[in-house]
Amino acid sequence: MTVEAAGESALVGLIRRVQGESGPTVIKGIGDDAAVYAPPEGVSLASADMLIEGVHFDPATTTPFQLGYKCVTVNLSDIRAMAGVPRYILVSSAIPGGMDVADLEEIFTGMKAACSKYGVDIIGGDTCRSPHGLTISVTVIGDAHAPVYRSGARPGDALFLSGPTGDSALGLEILKRVGKRMNLDCPESLGLPPEISGSELSIEAARALRRHLMPEPVMRDFHGATAMIDISDGLLLDLSRLCAESGVGAVVNMESIRLSPQLNKLAPLLGLDALTLALSGGEDYELLFAAPADAEFNGAVRIGRIVEKPGIFSDDECRQMVQPAGYDHFA
Amino acid sequence: MTVEAAGESALVGLIRRVQGESGPTVIKGIGDDAAVYAPPEGVSLASADMLIEGVHFDPATTTPFQLGYKCVTVNLSDIRAMAGVPRYILVSSAIPGGMDVADLEEIFTGMKAACSKYGVDIIGGDTCRSPHGLTISVTVIGDAHAPVYRSGARPGDALFLSGPTGDSALGLEILKRVGKRMNLDCPESLGLPPEISGSELSIEAARALRRHLMPEPVMRDFHGATAMIDISDGLLLDLSRLCAESGVGAVVNMESIRLSPQLNKLAPLLGLDALTLALSGGEDYELLFAAPADAEFNGAVRIGRIVEKPGIFSDDECRQMVQPAGYDHFA
Repeated sequence: MTVEAAGESALVGLIRRVQGESGPTVIKGIGDDAAVYAPPEGVSLASADMLIEGVHFDPATTTPFQLGYKCVTVNLSDIRAMAGVPRYILVSSAIPGGMDVADLEEIFTGMKAACSKYGVDIIGGDTCRSPHGLTISVTVIGDAHAPVYRSGARPGDALFLSGPTGDSALGLEILKRVGKRMNLDCPESLGLPPEISGSELSIEAARALRRHLMPEPVMRDFHGATAMIDISDGLLLDLSRLCAESGVGAVVNMESIRLSPQLNKLAPLLGLDALTLALSGGEDYELLFAAPADAEFNGAVRIGRIVEKPGIFSDDECRQMVQPAGYDHFA
Repeated sequence: MTVEAAGESALVGLIRRVQGESGPTVIKGIGDDAAVYAPPEGVSLASADMLIEGVHFDPATTTPFQLGYKCVTVNLSDIRAMAGVPRYILVSSAIPGGMDVADLEEIFTGMKAACSKYGVDIIGGDTCRSPHGLTISVTVIGDAHAPVYRSGARPGDALFLSGPTGDSALGLEILKRVGKRMNLDCPESLGLPPEISGSELSIEAARALRRHLMPEPVMRDFHGATAMIDISDGLLLDLSRLCAESGVGAVVNMESIRLSPQLNKLAPLLGLDALTLALSGGEDYELLFAAPADAEFNGAVRIGRIVEKPGIFSDDECRQMVQPAGYDHFA
């Protein structure tokens, strides 16, 4: 059945059913004029992200479940980038009338899977008819005792990265070449291009694809961070944003940039430069942060240091890197 | 210049500039991974609404300023319908690359005008390229000491309405007939159809048009309300929602339904039935609420009573009204 035939109240009912029972801090979830929730102990955080068919995702290569999952996790990452705890989301969807209700249910099932994994409740939103394609707008609300801003980095701080970058960009490259939806739980069924087929490579490819199609927020805490950002648009571009907000520069130790095994192995087979993907590829959702020089963190690698001089420099030659490449949503 | 040529960071800069300085409870507004704000004294409220070009508005008949204004006020109304105080909004926009930056600035200027009027800060959002038309998704965050739900109405309660309904639907009808953008501050320039032209009628028409194009939330407090909803989809439909959530019915005293002077005067001239518009026209954003039978309110009219038997009844014949007409976003 199409969503048009089902009608709006059936859709709202579907969303309420998928959400199920809310956590104890939700006083009133979906179904009134506004959601009601208990105030936090610390400060409140809010962030919003929109995913648009044909811009942020392609239904030909993304399953509805994967789409719903990613809509949530990319938003949770913004709260994690403030050292916060995500609590609630509101989901507004512009839905083509001809979409199958089963697909819409899968989208919300994917959202719910991500919400359940990270302890987040869907508390509200809006459901509208779209004349052109699917648009999903998610607002996430969270809280923090001590939020970490982009603006707190100071010269002398060290620079840390929570995990390898470039995998999501690699996954996107693979996805473009395959050009169809994939069941990531069955690597042997992915239909990979010949350069990277074979059972071992398939497992590596599935890892990269998962990082693109179903990214996860970093949930580890990095106490003592002075400034933080998540890598949504590329390591160098997001680093340049953190530096700009802090009024500082950064020297990156290129030797320390970790490449995942799958990036190392698959990028050359696909004719791609692994380091370029790691420096400029978007949507990894790793956390990049500054902290005092003597700090050490489990689950984060030191990749450089904060300096007074504005700009992003590589330490091997100490010269300014080219204009950071990354993602301008209108470029 | 088009938004495509201006680029994303210029647009974010524009939004930051239009928002200006934030209120004292905003710890960090636009510009980080998430906004940070002080927790409220009471409970928190959140609601979201999406406005889509070709579905909720027509750029041929809505100025960018009017659109921005309405995007905000319809959301504030949801918080008011919970007896809450709106505080913050997040705005996610999917913007066609070819849109003029000046139009986008006018949209945000309209948003800011509404925000300033009602003491609300724009604290975040997202700015994306849209392949098809403009979509604006607004999330509003507020708070309340004692939120009023749809579900609190009890048999014996009286039913109140904060103001006349039907004007917005009348305004929409006029707008459709005129088919162009209007400067509501110059009634003589509206280009009205001959049935309702003339200087006095123009002033009445401008009032109805304003209620459709630039609706205002009801800011009066109705202490003691047991259940409340705002009229977004039509008096009868929204009443039926309030009753459904409360598990009750309602008897409406048809004589008490107030028609504004402009609705009374203009509807017949346009071949429309004023009472039908008042009962079924959407987007008036008046507040409909139940309260104990002996309550009286300044700025609200008693229009009926809550009864045990489910359904909406007219009191003159005490029979069930036809299936409430209203707005299904997929119908």
